[in-house]
Amino acid sequence: MRLATLRDGGTTVAVRADSDTTATVIDGFPDLSALLADSDWKQIATSASGRSIGLDGANFAPVVPHPGKIVCVGLNYASHITEMGRELPEYPTLFAKFADALTGPYDDVVVPAYAGSQLDWEAELAVIIGKTAYQVDEKDATDHIAGYSVINDYTMRDYQYRTLQWDQGKTFEKTSGFGPFLVTDYQLGTPIEARLEGEVVQSSTTDDLVFTPARLVDYISHIVTLRPGDVIITGTTGGVGHARKPPRYIQDGETVEVSIGGLGTVRNKTVIK
Amino acid sequence: MRLATLRDGGTTVAVRADSDTTATVIDGFPDLSALLADSDWKQIATSASGRSIGLDGANFAPVVPHPGKIVCVGLNYASHITEMGRELPEYPTLFAKFADALTGPYDDVVVPAYAGSQLDWEAELAVIIGKTAYQVDEKDATDHIAGYSVINDYTMRDYQYRTLQWDQGKTFEKTSGFGPFLVTDYQLGTPIEARLEGEVVQSSTTDDLVFTPARLVDYISHIVTLRPGDVIITGTTGGVGHARKPPRYIQDGETVEVSIGGLGTVRNKTVIK
Repeated sequence: MRLATLRDGGTTVAVRADSDTTATVIDGFPDLSALLADSDWKQIATSASGRSIGLDGANFAPVVPHPGKIVCVGLNYASHITEMGRELPEYPTLFAKFADALTGPYDDVVVPAYAGSQLDWEAELAVIIGKTAYQVDEKDATDHIAGYSVINDYTMRDYQYRTLQWDQGKTFEKTSGFGPFLVTDYQLGTPIEARLEGEVVQSSTTDDLVFTPARLVDYISHIVTLRPGDVIITGTTGGVGHARKPPRYIQDGETVEVSIGGLGTVRNKTVIK
Repeated sequence: MRLATLRDGGTTVAVRADSDTTATVIDGFPDLSALLADSDWKQIATSASGRSIGLDGANFAPVVPHPGKIVCVGLNYASHITEMGRELPEYPTLFAKFADALTGPYDDVVVPAYAGSQLDWEAELAVIIGKTAYQVDEKDATDHIAGYSVINDYTMRDYQYRTLQWDQGKTFEKTSGFGPFLVTDYQLGTPIEARLEGEVVQSSTTDDLVFTPARLVDYISHIVTLRPGDVIITGTTGGVGHARKPPRYIQDGETVEVSIGGLGTVRNKTVIK
């Protein structure tokens, strides 16, 4: 099943995609954050029979617009870590993004000029929690995952490296394209790719993750409760602009696409002003 | 004015403290997060005339229980930085704590045994946002601050240093005592102190901050929107247990108090199990 949050007449609606062109409104829920807060969300979505909305040219909001927490993972693609000559990590590197950093999967990313000099892409698989998880073991973790989506962990490299802690470079207002769908039955192992102006700049597969979604739910839920609608962003592979020689950053007017096979594509043009 | 969130008969209520012993319920608001979401919060709190609740033995919840974001600041007390032989920083070091890490100002902090070996205290001034702030300049920032409170930025040092990013050591479930009051008319410059089992272990004054609350609102709001009820935790001074030789950690059954003159005290006993 594929779910989305669409902007519709000044508000938003939660929908179930019935095909690539048509969706059904899930009445009573303004977005997927509200839907996931209902423990019967899966049954409600499956049986929804609201009005139809066409998906061609639909205005997609961030797929889960109000996560209570967004936990980001660094250094999590095995082939990229080993090609850099590093050992695989014993523990996941965790940092945070705030919900205000999310934007729709096709929105323009508007960056203030003072923050526009080192803009970078990071293609990532997002895991969305469907059931409260505290101290959940890896073997049971999948029960707590609602589904998966695509995110560009859009990064201001200058802010990221102003201090030792990365968070301030990872959470700029409305910069991380997120969506278009929450897919409930995704299986790891499909291609993940970033493209800048159509050129492939990152390419891997999602079964190269050192810490899988299930291991991450285990690890994080032994620290803090994961709640329905919370999001885990699982890290990126090699090929980011900052690591190139010379570095390559997103310029005003350029478009970044992030695609994951079976999940879809986010496509955001950057506007610096 | 002093405001608080009290647990009361299976739910919580927002209150205005009228003295050290008596408070008035602010009808219609289950906690200060809900109150601050109303743009008239200050007028509503001032004129509230609900029933009286005694404060002796009252059960205080985290003063603002559901912040949308908690931005933590590291390395922010000038005298501590210079005594360590370091230069004052050009930019604030920012990391994050999730709302699930908060606990009441007098609650026991229950730590799972697997995380109980390097528990540390950090006495900090908390700034609570009262009005939405995006790209706000320092000179206007105070208008966006609802008030101030006390927090123990309780830290698992082993988790903090498992990787380069600190967040996982800063956000354990229900460990950071927060409260007891939000004080609207606090002025920087009073003593801030941590005590372990009654012994003073940290001591400074809140006018030693490198980045003041107004500067932090300016800096952070040029990255991401600060919303009513969001919290900025402003950093700690010297004297944490991890930096002692030998290190000293909080043991099972020990109580940490954090006090700020004019704001009050949080007092939490640690229980490892």
